[in-house]
Amino acid sequence: MKHIIIASTSTLHESNYLGYILDELVSFFKDASTILFIPYARPSGISHDDYTNKVQDAFLKINKHIVGIHTLKDPVKAIKNAEAIFVGGGNTFVLVNQLYKNKILTPLKETVEKGIPYLGTSAGSNVCGLTMNTTNDMPIVQPPSFKTLGLVPFNINPHYLDPDPNSKHNGETRETRIKEFHAFNTQPVIGLREGSWLEVNGSTITLKGHLQARVFEHNKAPYEIDPNTQLDNLK
Amino acid sequence: MKHIIIASTSTLHESNYLGYILDELVSFFKDASTILFIPYARPSGISHDDYTNKVQDAFLKINKHIVGIHTLKDPVKAIKNAEAIFVGGGNTFVLVNQLYKNKILTPLKETVEKGIPYLGTSAGSNVCGLTMNTTNDMPIVQPPSFKTLGLVPFNINPHYLDPDPNSKHNGETRETRIKEFHAFNTQPVIGLREGSWLEVNGSTITLKGHLQARVFEHNKAPYEIDPNTQLDNLK
Repeated sequence: MKHIIIASTSTLHESNYLGYILDELVSFFKDASTILFIPYARPSGISHDDYTNKVQDAFLKINKHIVGIHTLKDPVKAIKNAEAIFVGGGNTFVLVNQLYKNKILTPLKETVEKGIPYLGTSAGSNVCGLTMNTTNDMPIVQPPSFKTLGLVPFNINPHYLDPDPNSKHNGETRETRIKEFHAFNTQPVIGLREGSWLEVNGSTITLKGHLQARVFEHNKAPYEIDPNTQLDNLK
Repeated sequence: MKHIIIASTSTLHESNYLGYILDELVSFFKDASTILFIPYARPSGISHDDYTNKVQDAFLKINKHIVGIHTLKDPVKAIKNAEAIFVGGGNTFVLVNQLYKNKILTPLKETVEKGIPYLGTSAGSNVCGLTMNTTNDMPIVQPPSFKTLGLVPFNINPHYLDPDPNSKHNGETRETRIKEFHAFNTQPVIGLREGSWLEVNGSTITLKGHLQARVFEHNKAPYEIDPNTQLDNLK
């Protein structure tokens, strides 16, 4: 049975890394003492070691040991033997490129489908969707494919932002971008605001946190869903 | 001799489409009565016809006839015979995908290098750079390559936005994104604020408009340049 947390962000404004969700992670990771961390997304271009140390600092508070996948010889074996997995945020293009390069996309999907708990934040959440086509990130490297894990039957847009009514900027709003996505693709997109996450338990998908999320379905007006709404039928 | 305008945006806040730059375009397009328009970027997913009509409306004011490349049988021939070319904004991934699909990337480069005037706005400006790796757009389709026209020896970031000091959002700032780009790439990036454009005359590249632009060079602190600064040595 799948156990997945798909979080919009790792960090809330003026809060510590993973601080807002740490209580939740205590129960989510209750059967794991060591978490395999995938630092490939490299936020701000930091090294895998620096990123792993930052994550270890946060998880010390709940007594979890973190192992960076880059420190192990065989990444496929590392995935297959993991007690629990965390894929951190950063740049989704860099992350997906490395997942393909290290040939771990399929092993990762299979391991999570077997029931190994998976936490994703931001880029690590994007890859839970069918494709990475709804990332907000800059395409700083070119992965071989935009196809991702498909652990849920729709796409994720993390860090979802409502249009700013006072903006004088002509760049596209997030809603316009997702509308453009639906000119070429049909799968639904969940806009997860910072502080929200999806909890996947087997075939049940539930919106968690205190905020509404925005759902974009092909050829439908976008709509809001409340916390604790189940999304099992969205596809 | 190359004649290119690389504009950050088509439209300023509370202004008409191309309104802020129309006077400039009178002299830029003085030798052309017909402009070949490339509507491939499809802003908000609008059709090629609707986009072309919008552009025709704007260019009526300066007595130019617009022909959408999608209305012609042979796009390569259309490029080769063009008196002048305008590539409009929208989604850079969609634009680049169509440039490759219609096999016009190389003919377009050659035609512009021969001296046919080229106006680009937003996505149409991104493609003037070496690659599209510094677009702000959502990757809603996957082009075969991120390599673009290379009409200038650096990358463009249109709609450049300064960080908002009041933001409580945890998504990356534009500067952070470009910093991440430089973790994997070495070419300079010009952040063009809305209302700015680069004017290319042969080998001379000049910042135009009333605003400063922000230059990001690999392994250097970013810096501002004033209007009328020449960028001939940036590479």
